[in-house]
Amino acid sequence: MISHIEHIGIAVANLEEAIAYYENVLGLSCYAIEEVEDQAVKTAFFRVGETKIELLYPTSPDSPVAKFLEKKGPGIHHLAFATDDVEKTLQDMEKKGVRMIDKKPRKGAEGLKIGFLHPHSTGGVLTEICGEK
Amino acid sequence: MISHIEHIGIAVANLEEAIAYYENVLGLSCYAIEEVEDQAVKTAFFRVGETKIELLYPTSPDSPVAKFLEKKGPGIHHLAFATDDVEKTLQDMEKKGVRMIDKKPRKGAEGLKIGFLHPHSTGGVLTEICGEK
Repeated sequence: MISHIEHIGIAVANLEEAIAYYENVLGLSCYAIEEVEDQAVKTAFFRVGETKIELLYPTSPDSPVAKFLEKKGPGIHHLAFATDDVEKTLQDMEKKGVRMIDKKPRKGAEGLKIGFLHPHSTGGVLTEICGEK
Repeated sequence: MISHIEHIGIAVANLEEAIAYYENVLGLSCYAIEEVEDQAVKTAFFRVGETKIELLYPTSPDSPVAKFLEKKGPGIHHLAFATDDVEKTLQDMEKKGVRMIDKKPRKGAEGLKIGFLHPHSTGGVLTEICGEK
């Protein structure tokens, strides 16, 4: 079951400038900067209510986020929904005919279990399911 | 002051199919369908935790959302932050040098006061500020 938006992933072309915007203009506070080697990105996190903003900056030209920036420019990259059981949620979605990028959970930022749905099945929105279990 | 994400606006090419996806796959419930004449869109709303998903379907080829769909295809259109005072927040942001689409609040969906920041100042993310006051 989906409980809330866990985070919104935003691809940025300049991490320092983006952090400055979210801190100085929106008044949010960056509480963590973390590299996710698997995705070749540097991430910066901000809490906003029960949701987080996750800035994504590519650390390699092969990063999926580098390719996104090349094609579409900076902007919202993905939407992550929180669930209490990622494995079961992904299984249920696959059974419903959703095209999956991940059929089983893998490890994402902040130690969470994550899995992505394919934008083909989600109206063009790269959608992540994430949670602790 | 920004308190939370008020909603995430998503441009859709087929409103019925998109509603079916958010209801059947993500298990959310559509609680309102509303036309916003000013923006030439039909909107469908879903609550997810303290945030909302707002689907946007153009009702005219001149709708900004029709132009977005033509250029970028379906996907996330904008991000809306909640504040307790929209007018003051927009004024403060303009003073900080943010390029504004709306310097003063106007009326948006659900009777809220809203104002948009230009993506040029926000790292490519069309950003809305909204609230009751």
